[in-house]
Amino acid sequence: MKNSRAVVYMGPAGSYTEMAAKQFCKNLGMQGCELILQPSILKVIDYVDNCTDGLLGVIPIENSIEGIVRETVDNLLLAKSSLFIQSETVLPISHCLISKASELNTIKKIISYTQALAQCQRFMADNLPAAGIINSSSTSEAVKQLLELDETYAAIGSEYAAEIYGLNVLRKEINDHSNNQTRFVLIGREQALQTGEDKTSIVFSTQNKPGDLVRVLNIFDRAGLNLSYIESRPSKKCFGEYNFFIDFEGHIEDTIVKDVLVQIEPYITFYRFLGSYPAFKK
Amino acid sequence: MKNSRAVVYMGPAGSYTEMAAKQFCKNLGMQGCELILQPSILKVIDYVDNCTDGLLGVIPIENSIEGIVRETVDNLLLAKSSLFIQSETVLPISHCLISKASELNTIKKIISYTQALAQCQRFMADNLPAAGIINSSSTSEAVKQLLELDETYAAIGSEYAAEIYGLNVLRKEINDHSNNQTRFVLIGREQALQTGEDKTSIVFSTQNKPGDLVRVLNIFDRAGLNLSYIESRPSKKCFGEYNFFIDFEGHIEDTIVKDVLVQIEPYITFYRFLGSYPAFKK
Repeated sequence: MKNSRAVVYMGPAGSYTEMAAKQFCKNLGMQGCELILQPSILKVIDYVDNCTDGLLGVIPIENSIEGIVRETVDNLLLAKSSLFIQSETVLPISHCLISKASELNTIKKIISYTQALAQCQRFMADNLPAAGIINSSSTSEAVKQLLELDETYAAIGSEYAAEIYGLNVLRKEINDHSNNQTRFVLIGREQALQTGEDKTSIVFSTQNKPGDLVRVLNIFDRAGLNLSYIESRPSKKCFGEYNFFIDFEGHIEDTIVKDVLVQIEPYITFYRFLGSYPAFKK
Repeated sequence: MKNSRAVVYMGPAGSYTEMAAKQFCKNLGMQGCELILQPSILKVIDYVDNCTDGLLGVIPIENSIEGIVRETVDNLLLAKSSLFIQSETVLPISHCLISKASELNTIKKIISYTQALAQCQRFMADNLPAAGIINSSSTSEAVKQLLELDETYAAIGSEYAAEIYGLNVLRKEINDHSNNQTRFVLIGREQALQTGEDKTSIVFSTQNKPGDLVRVLNIFDRAGLNLSYIESRPSKKCFGEYNFFIDFEGHIEDTIVKDVLVQIEPYITFYRFLGSYPAFKK
């Protein structure tokens, strides 16, 4: 069991999530706090889920190109305890091709995390069409693995990871879309307090999806609570049944939000509050 | 350029998409039609996009566990010509662990398509936690690759693929969720005719997403056009901007559908018709 100043994130060292974790620590005045590395998003969620109050976790939740991080939202729903999103931040993502090699033409295999591979599809098709693709649990894990591999391997990861592991950056900014950003969230077992500029994340499903989804969204609309995000994920129970993830303006302690949550009750069959937290500002 | 009786699908032989392609051919009375294999979803879309009228393509669009197939919907939007969904079918997906080996404990590496790997996470974590994970462009490509690899490799694919390539099935039904189904669509450059039991797929984006999305959905609801599906995908232009993929009851030639599409115009900034086609029935 860890003290309340510890932050768990997806490592190894050099991950984008580490950069986000450091950003959260800075914002919360927790510089120098203990950083605990876990090998996957699922393990970070499990760690916070099974730990004492006060421990915090950092995980990516959405990318501007690839969309929702399925591993994050699907596993947040499976947590045994109540985990809450306490804060969010958005970081620019700039992928590099990293290797022990110093020339692109020696590369035969590329290792990275699924979303990073998806974000560099065009680069790989244009520059390394014959390269084999190997999955890793994170971009920094991919870069770290290069230390034990030969010059035919490359990894996709951050310039920061290349520095940490003393490897060559063969190409910078290889993501297919230049406006690549990832939204990270800080999770914990306590709720964040009202700030007046909050957003709230919830998940729900409806019995008769078509009409009932519109009815639920109308209740938010009539209350003036703008939705900033909506995403459907399969319920995994029955084909055609979905859970809807929505983010909207307001805090769970706001009277208007409480009223809306009562009003939507008749239309929903499953509901989970994921957290109210200060909305990210550039 | 191929004749109108040719169907392109994601191969190599033994893919779930091949089973869907054969199902479509049977439904359309096209048994014995030419089957053309392409190595990826993108290549199937490109092939139909660049070919003469009449050529058809088969691609997976949604899985009951993993959700929308991002490679399909993102690339359908990038097609140069107008490609239409002409038909849909749903197939059960039952993954096997396949190898030259006859014992599970010799396996050190697992190859498969991203979605298949995601659908068997728990099986792999419980049975082969230390195995390396290698991506392939399809499940059947993974199984075919085994022919050139040793007994430390296994692939996740269909029993049908194991048969075709003469390999051992080490474990059957290894998907984490038993109700695993995939929806496949038949695409071509012609539109399907009205049958009276059709559904329509469109994509749109709104300028001011929060309120405008609700306004658009209300228009469908008031017209009695039930939505069977809604999914948001990043516009890839700006973080927080989404394209909404929706499926609803009705055919583009129905008066009520035409009226609704006129009514939503003021609220949308981007629109693409993806097809009207007979709704799948079990």
